[in-house]
Amino acid sequence: MDLWEQLSEAQKREVHRQLDIIRRGAADIIPEETLIQKITSSVLTGKPLKVKLGLDPSAPDVHVGHTVVLHKLRQFQDLGHEVQLIIGDFTGRIGDPTGKSETRKQLSEEDVKRNAASYKKQLYKILDPEKTKFHFNSTWLQKMNFEQVLLLAGKATVARMLERDDFAKRYGTNHPIHLHEFFYPLMQGYDSVALESDIELGGTDQTFNILMGRTLQHAYGFEHGQAAILMPILEGLDGTQKMSKSLGNYIGIDDSPNEMFGKTMSVSDELMLKYYELTTALPNDELLQLKEGLAKGKIHPRDAKIRLAKEYVCMYHGKEAAELAEQHFSAVFRNRSFPEHIDEFRISPNLMEDGCIQVCKLLVTLGFASSNSEARRSVVQGAVKLNGARISDPYVRIELHSGDIMQSGKRKFAKIVISEGGMDTY
Amino acid sequence: MDLWEQLSEAQKREVHRQLDIIRRGAADIIPEETLIQKITSSVLTGKPLKVKLGLDPSAPDVHVGHTVVLHKLRQFQDLGHEVQLIIGDFTGRIGDPTGKSETRKQLSEEDVKRNAASYKKQLYKILDPEKTKFHFNSTWLQKMNFEQVLLLAGKATVARMLERDDFAKRYGTNHPIHLHEFFYPLMQGYDSVALESDIELGGTDQTFNILMGRTLQHAYGFEHGQAAILMPILEGLDGTQKMSKSLGNYIGIDDSPNEMFGKTMSVSDELMLKYYELTTALPNDELLQLKEGLAKGKIHPRDAKIRLAKEYVCMYHGKEAAELAEQHFSAVFRNRSFPEHIDEFRISPNLMEDGCIQVCKLLVTLGFASSNSEARRSVVQGAVKLNGARISDPYVRIELHSGDIMQSGKRKFAKIVISEGGMDTY
Repeated sequence: MDLWEQLSEAQKREVHRQLDIIRRGAADIIPEETLIQKITSSVLTGKPLKVKLGLDPSAPDVHVGHTVVLHKLRQFQDLGHEVQLIIGDFTGRIGDPTGKSETRKQLSEEDVKRNAASYKKQLYKILDPEKTKFHFNSTWLQKMNFEQVLLLAGKATVARMLERDDFAKRYGTNHPIHLHEFFYPLMQGYDSVALESDIELGGTDQTFNILMGRTLQHAYGFEHGQAAILMPILEGLDGTQKMSKSLGNYIGIDDSPNEMFGKTMSVSDELMLKYYELTTALPNDELLQLKEGLAKGKIHPRDAKIRLAKEYVCMYHGKEAAELAEQHFSAVFRNRSFPEHIDEFRISPNLMEDGCIQVCKLLVTLGFASSNSEARRSVVQGAVKLNGARISDPYVRIELHSGDIMQSGKRKFAKIVISEGGMDTY
Repeated sequence: MDLWEQLSEAQKREVHRQLDIIRRGAADIIPEETLIQKITSSVLTGKPLKVKLGLDPSAPDVHVGHTVVLHKLRQFQDLGHEVQLIIGDFTGRIGDPTGKSETRKQLSEEDVKRNAASYKKQLYKILDPEKTKFHFNSTWLQKMNFEQVLLLAGKATVARMLERDDFAKRYGTNHPIHLHEFFYPLMQGYDSVALESDIELGGTDQTFNILMGRTLQHAYGFEHGQAAILMPILEGLDGTQKMSKSLGNYIGIDDSPNEMFGKTMSVSDELMLKYYELTTALPNDELLQLKEGLAKGKIHPRDAKIRLAKEYVCMYHGKEAAELAEQHFSAVFRNRSFPEHIDEFRISPNLMEDGCIQVCKLLVTLGFASSNSEARRSVVQGAVKLNGARISDPYVRIELHSGDIMQSGKRKFAKIVISEGGMDTY
């Protein structure tokens, strides 16, 4: 590579340093040569790269699963590059023209603005606002006329579109694909043309759409199309399914400190390491030490989990909140005389309202009481405790979180798991 | 059908009369019930139907092949209905966005206007200007924004598009279909939405596109989508291939009277009857008489052809021109002492310039002379005649048409067929 020859030794080391950081945790980089070329060129010229991430305008509740790409973006920022966040408001405002699918709801302009504000508030907990630019893709897409849309459509072929996994599957099984659906990847790809993105980040499920951006950039005359950096999909608390709000297996970055701490403590040891790698800013060498310590038994998994939980609370609520959450956790879960093993009970969110449940209803559901009147008696007698704290009002609605310990009398204990059906492990 | 019950007896007869005329020569009517419903409703309310035909903005040279649909439109006008002619200028100005295909050239606004004027001049030879409205589809299409285009695209599925013959074939053989190509049927179909067409006419090769118009009308909330009236594709003078300018097997409606007459006289007996049925205004009963007369030998095919030729010339150049053309033809072909059978010689248009050829070059090409000097001698000796008229200047460039008789001396005769290669019969 010609560029490479023009680098000083220090610059070459800088390229290697950047590549090492960028590669951490990435599932795939396509094509790797383009990433190298882009980084090399940036180091040589001192010009920051433009690193793009598309955001779903309809879902501003950010959880730890989303932060996998956000942490990667933050790494780019720490390396001096610039982040382009695209709110797909054009797509979002249009919704699904056929009206047949429930998956995309039509958003009003106000919805979009409110969601964007919510995104900023949450994302700036990880990203550097100085190196972040928000864009609405309606800015360029809504101005396009039929002629320009046809020009865009002419850049892609039907066969290529039908290679996308979900399209291929639906076409193969005679499930209708409506023509406008082909425009979602085209619109996302065109965003990269409009913003001249150098790199686009996404989960591995975004591979097709991100490579479409590269294709379109070439079709619109770019010499070097963008590189795709594809991050793994993070499993949720259950350890099997993708973390998502609808499955309830998530840690939200707006969760309260105690909730966040408790949820983190509930993950498996293996998942904990993946969470460390993909969703914290822990440097590579410290991550390695941690892995070794755990493998050799020098570090207790519980302590590592406490550290992870504190990292999260610190990141999203600050240092003080992290200390308090740890103290709360210790007070509730370690200093109380709970039995060594407590059975888990799954409580469906359907039983709750706004995260709360009537205490007697809970006791009956858990089988701690055979009737509401028996449950009320237990409460009145002072036998019922939530996380060790006595409940005295039999009509109170209590806020319940996964990991909470519910107790009735001396022998009845239950560790609460708030979850839809269909999950086997927790 | 409720509507039917509301008709008087006279109105019922009128519906039958209209249907009989409309059905003449049609290859298919889809769906027939819709046509009946539309006609019935029109007869009941006295409201004319809107009958649509799309025109290719790039090809304003109208030939007899095109007049199949034009005569059908004229029948509708004579029945009191209105014709909508759509010049697809939006499609035409856009051309082929990929730039890979040569089939669609980008047209300037001036091209489109000039072509439209040319269309009017030619089409009003058949259509009633009072009952004809010209429309440019850019009027509504060019105003559409991305959102509206997506709405349109959402009305069709990929699978449905891939059912169209040419798309199916290309997809099946891994030839690329660019996405914008799917918009051609959608645009044509949307024209029917914009103009609220009741009926659309076209050749059988337009079946998919016309039915797309019906689908889109339903998708945009029309109670009764348009009916498709599909006319047969007319074979050219060769009797096998579709009549087209590029194949040279056509009778142009701007051809000179003598050329038109001569070309018509050259068609086969079978084709002549098809031309009568599809491209003249001859009433059904007269057509039947003609067929019977020919079948029983009461009418000589040559006389029937002369009548057809006169019909054409009369239609496109007036009654007087028709009489003159017949006289010219008789003078040349019947009153001269030509042999009973004259061999045909095919002359490629490539040998000609502006329809003309140097006389000696022609003689050599026909094999009537072995060299230019021998050809010159024949001319100077007065042996060379075109349609019986002596040629005396050996350097003259003569205008040549299909059907012309070239003669050298007493025994050398040739009937000229101007044609590209690739045609076996004439």
